[in-house]
Amino acid sequence: MTNIRAEIVAVGTELLLGQIADTNAQWISQRLAAIGINVHHHAVVGDNLQRVEEQFKLSNERSDVIIVTGGLGPTEDDLTREAFQKLSGMEIVEHEPSMKKIKAYFAKQKIDMTPNNRKQARVFADADILDNQTGMAPGMIVPYGDKTWIFLPGVPHEMKRMMANDILPYLQRLLGEDTIIKSVMLRFIGIGESRLEHELQDLIQQQTNPTIAPLAQNEGIATRLTAKAATDEEALKLIERTKQDVLDKVGEHYYGEDEQTLQASVLELLKDQGKSVAAAESLTGGMFIDRLIAIPGASHVCRGGIVCYDTKVKENVLRVPSDLISQYGTVSEPCASVMAANVSSLMDADIGISFTGVAGPGSSEGHPAGTVFITIHEKSGKQQTEKYNFYGDRQTIRKQTVLKGYELLFNLLK
Amino acid sequence: MTNIRAEIVAVGTELLLGQIADTNAQWISQRLAAIGINVHHHAVVGDNLQRVEEQFKLSNERSDVIIVTGGLGPTEDDLTREAFQKLSGMEIVEHEPSMKKIKAYFAKQKIDMTPNNRKQARVFADADILDNQTGMAPGMIVPYGDKTWIFLPGVPHEMKRMMANDILPYLQRLLGEDTIIKSVMLRFIGIGESRLEHELQDLIQQQTNPTIAPLAQNEGIATRLTAKAATDEEALKLIERTKQDVLDKVGEHYYGEDEQTLQASVLELLKDQGKSVAAAESLTGGMFIDRLIAIPGASHVCRGGIVCYDTKVKENVLRVPSDLISQYGTVSEPCASVMAANVSSLMDADIGISFTGVAGPGSSEGHPAGTVFITIHEKSGKQQTEKYNFYGDRQTIRKQTVLKGYELLFNLLK
Repeated sequence: MTNIRAEIVAVGTELLLGQIADTNAQWISQRLAAIGINVHHHAVVGDNLQRVEEQFKLSNERSDVIIVTGGLGPTEDDLTREAFQKLSGMEIVEHEPSMKKIKAYFAKQKIDMTPNNRKQARVFADADILDNQTGMAPGMIVPYGDKTWIFLPGVPHEMKRMMANDILPYLQRLLGEDTIIKSVMLRFIGIGESRLEHELQDLIQQQTNPTIAPLAQNEGIATRLTAKAATDEEALKLIERTKQDVLDKVGEHYYGEDEQTLQASVLELLKDQGKSVAAAESLTGGMFIDRLIAIPGASHVCRGGIVCYDTKVKENVLRVPSDLISQYGTVSEPCASVMAANVSSLMDADIGISFTGVAGPGSSEGHPAGTVFITIHEKSGKQQTEKYNFYGDRQTIRKQTVLKGYELLFNLLK
Repeated sequence: MTNIRAEIVAVGTELLLGQIADTNAQWISQRLAAIGINVHHHAVVGDNLQRVEEQFKLSNERSDVIIVTGGLGPTEDDLTREAFQKLSGMEIVEHEPSMKKIKAYFAKQKIDMTPNNRKQARVFADADILDNQTGMAPGMIVPYGDKTWIFLPGVPHEMKRMMANDILPYLQRLLGEDTIIKSVMLRFIGIGESRLEHELQDLIQQQTNPTIAPLAQNEGIATRLTAKAATDEEALKLIERTKQDVLDKVGEHYYGEDEQTLQASVLELLKDQGKSVAAAESLTGGMFIDRLIAIPGASHVCRGGIVCYDTKVKENVLRVPSDLISQYGTVSEPCASVMAANVSSLMDADIGISFTGVAGPGSSEGHPAGTVFITIHEKSGKQQTEKYNFYGDRQTIRKQTVLKGYELLFNLLK
């Protein structure tokens, strides 16, 4: 099938009440776009059997592939299976391996399993069952007439894993055309969206295969290259050539591909160079080092950190001299400098990085919210301190500070 | 009209490509829920005349009020007006005041107005026109048969202003009933969704005003009580009575209402009791203390923390005896115990909390991923250590650990 009309349906009253946002639809749409599948509709419907059934009927008429998220949980409100059964008449059975897993979970947690949890192991008899590696309810691929129905949990990390492991490869086989579509996301830091688009303007206009699409991201910015070709090899070759053209223009801001995070790039550079890092965090409160430890394998290069939110902790644990603090304040280059040096020696790390500043709301020590000092200290004694004026609420300022810390560290190591 | 069925339709291919998220639907849904209007559907459709028309036809059949965002701009892709005209046959005219404003804008910017900008001043002849205070295309309220169509720009800040200034007051008049709707969210920790529903089953079934709806949340679980009454006072009284019934059953797990987070509840309890806290974090890597510091005012009670991911940091900074580590390992009750005691004395905190365990992937010191010890140490010397076996990937285990830490701290302080 070369032209698949896809539709994404989310089931859940909490979405219609605005209690949560349907972030799944956007994420899935990006992935489908990358393999060349056209999404024609997003729909959200509440936990109401009749309305879910009506929505499913409509979706079945107008789309070839219908991806449903949510409504597979244990409660009475979870009605996705029932609604599709009313539409299709398909038999529902208990899936032994899933039931075993659910029982094992409750046994391990030493909690009694309430009877409604059984429901999560119920699947359509004809379905391909998708193992849920991080949750309970399995996913399903259900062929129905000439349509394909895909049922996934609403919990984003469970859904994403099944999409990546099972659904996208399945859909690529379903596309079954001679053309192969490959795409790669190139990630950049330290350059804005309009600047990137400006630098790449000519390339974007001249280039049709691969296409080049800039995308603003949570952390930095990315550009997606999408190539069509007869073979995998040829598609990759096309991408490689255009990637080189892009990097010739903005390569100094490039840090990684696809799902690579800036933190992971920094971690790899640290590993490659056999260097360890420790952090002294005041306003960032542990967020910097947390993001590194989030990555498997961080233990090889990450010593740890001191969260010195309190001035007394800066003095007593990090040994920042109290007369330095009374002379310059804690929001100052000298304080940042000593924090970075002392955390690196205290934790025997090759690199010490420090963060001190005003997260807000409101100013501190005469500095407005957003005033931030970051120091990077190397064992050799070499130091770099930068001052920033970030803008936004408390969390925005804290997150910008952490991101900037990774950018500085990346630029030092690359 | 006492029971309005509302629907929110977003028009824009960029949404179906996943380039942007439909945050408008969530925002509008929250506002409609607050005035007691039921949203039955969200739909997203691309910039394709036929599909937009089909969507509008469907929406007109199944809903009373249809709120459309997007597709009112100047480009060829903006097709909302054309699609509704095909459905309704309504005449479109140029709106003089809007045209004047658009011309004035271009004059002021000293840019030539391209002819397609004229399009933005085109409105339905029978529409109520809503002034766009921060953009160009006006909004419209269009009565059509017994249905009400509302057209708004897709740009969030333009849409939000029209919703607040014009649409919500209009819809409240349309509701035209004496009934007031109030709702409250009760938040719980330490109880699962299925268990909560089980405990409240009788209440949920007997109770129609207020209604009781359990909802899984990122952190713990919540239940929404929604009451209808003639006056504010009466609605609040109904809610108060049912809240009491709910708390009689599961009150020991209750931590707050509405947007209150567990961290904020813990922070308030610490403040009320004049107690300070410090954390020693191994596998959680700073995440525990970061979440407290994220809240404005944390400085009064939050001393800071030691991220002791590395064994050497446990020994050299936190002074965990190395023979204790060689005898019991770092993933052990004795290690957790000393970590909590020492961080509280090192940082002069009333309460020290420690986290040590295996985040995975893979086991460590012979313990499988998910094995976690948490100790709470009080200045008096009183200690509590708990062992857990969490399930999931690295980040899931780390997040569950942090959440459990807050639950233990909450139970200690409440």
